[in-house]
Amino acid sequence: MKDLRQITVIGLGLLGGSVALAISRRLPAVKVVGYTHRASTRRRARRLAAANKIVDDIRRSVADADLVIVATPIGTFEQIFGEIADALPPGSIVTDIGSTKVLPHRWANKMLPKTVHYVGSHPVAGSEQRGIEFARPDLFDGATCILTTTRETNRQAVQTLKRFWTELGCLVKIMSPAEHDRILANISHLPHVTAVALVNANKSEELKLAGKGFLDTSRIASGPPNIWADVLLTNAGNTTRSIDKIIAELSKLKNAIKNQNKAQIEKLLEAARDKRSSLLNHKVRRKELML
Amino acid sequence: MKDLRQITVIGLGLLGGSVALAISRRLPAVKVVGYTHRASTRRRARRLAAANKIVDDIRRSVADADLVIVATPIGTFEQIFGEIADALPPGSIVTDIGSTKVLPHRWANKMLPKTVHYVGSHPVAGSEQRGIEFARPDLFDGATCILTTTRETNRQAVQTLKRFWTELGCLVKIMSPAEHDRILANISHLPHVTAVALVNANKSEELKLAGKGFLDTSRIASGPPNIWADVLLTNAGNTTRSIDKIIAELSKLKNAIKNQNKAQIEKLLEAARDKRSSLLNHKVRRKELML
Repeated sequence: MKDLRQITVIGLGLLGGSVALAISRRLPAVKVVGYTHRASTRRRARRLAAANKIVDDIRRSVADADLVIVATPIGTFEQIFGEIADALPPGSIVTDIGSTKVLPHRWANKMLPKTVHYVGSHPVAGSEQRGIEFARPDLFDGATCILTTTRETNRQAVQTLKRFWTELGCLVKIMSPAEHDRILANISHLPHVTAVALVNANKSEELKLAGKGFLDTSRIASGPPNIWADVLLTNAGNTTRSIDKIIAELSKLKNAIKNQNKAQIEKLLEAARDKRSSLLNHKVRRKELML
Repeated sequence: MKDLRQITVIGLGLLGGSVALAISRRLPAVKVVGYTHRASTRRRARRLAAANKIVDDIRRSVADADLVIVATPIGTFEQIFGEIADALPPGSIVTDIGSTKVLPHRWANKMLPKTVHYVGSHPVAGSEQRGIEFARPDLFDGATCILTTTRETNRQAVQTLKRFWTELGCLVKIMSPAEHDRILANISHLPHVTAVALVNANKSEELKLAGKGFLDTSRIASGPPNIWADVLLTNAGNTTRSIDKIIAELSKLKNAIKNQNKAQIEKLLEAARDKRSSLLNHKVRRKELML
């Protein structure tokens, strides 16, 4: 991509590391600079050859960047935008890969100079693992990547970023930060909270008898608590409304079971099975999923 | 196993078919007779060579059996016990592989003659798929199989059944039907209800953006509604109490998010992550899981 000669990735955990590796594999002509504040992570990133250059100075890391991708926990974005603000080249694009988007847009608007273009990114991909050792260049293959834009967002920057994520293997969707946060509360933040509640509702001793169903249903509860606390805190209104929705659905099932209402239980179970089946068919048609 | 020359499997769906295939592979000297009431299933079972003999007469299917395994939906057990009662050879063992155990024991006690030995079985293994096409001879490899017994249960029959499931690859546990149903409500029936509620709380259109986390968390919601309705109806008291527990945990998370209490959110997320991590370690040590 001729308009992206250097990309800087700030934060080299599972996601930042995977972005850096994916760029090296898919866009080999682009120079990748990685920044992380921890010396031990820099050493591990160098050992894994995660980027062309790995540096310890955040301002110098962005000085020649055409695109800066912030891949740290959401709670650090405001401070990082402030730190890099006057080191960013005019015309450069700044994005982040946080799982909520309303507050990052607000912080970018407040902290970044008007000479750079901010667009939100959310590649819907990840893992319950953490750390650059688990980074994979194919993490974004077939994933949906949502770009968030407002009326002020630079259209050229959106097009460049859209091409960038498409090159990395993503299917790109564009929406407003508010719509993103509302939908993601339902499809991503709610499953996380639910998996956590499911594990916490159980005793360790009893869990030893659990089968594959429990393990799959609870997998994402093994995700990093600090990252997820930031996600939930920055999408509080939507997430609490989503929790109310699942409590209402659980109560429906509970009442049907209590009343020995077989027809109603089957109706609720069939609705879920059919909805999930349509979802799988959609994903297979879009080649996001192989069955 | 010299005390088991013929085993009859009643019901040839995913589980019954897998039991039949597992016996053929692990205990090739044992004759396996399969019964299913549907002609189309019998044809498919014959095509897959799921058993040595596949018959359409349930009473004749058990006439020479040393062990009868009922693998139909729980709601049919009482009737099936009644149908086979006076066709069972004296001294034979009857078990079922239903996911709840209190009511099957009650029905066996009521319907089966005192000359045969009933023991409950619950191999904690399965899949969201249904039908004999998805049966697998290795479905029980490394799975826990819970045997349920009461003071009246014949000890010799328990030992024979324990050896049988061990030969099929299971780790066998023995407990009372009441303890089984209480624990399984938490570790199996609750995850199922939760996965269903999670799917039902979401709109189909929005789900198109869902990632791998949602798909895993909701996988078991694709399970067969009629089978699961029977499970929930036959374990109603325990399951509704388990639903109350997860609603309480969801409410804790909701309040912490609403109050922007980061310390409390992280504490709840860390508790779940640590508990799940101990569970995975336990399963890996027991070789029930490869990581």
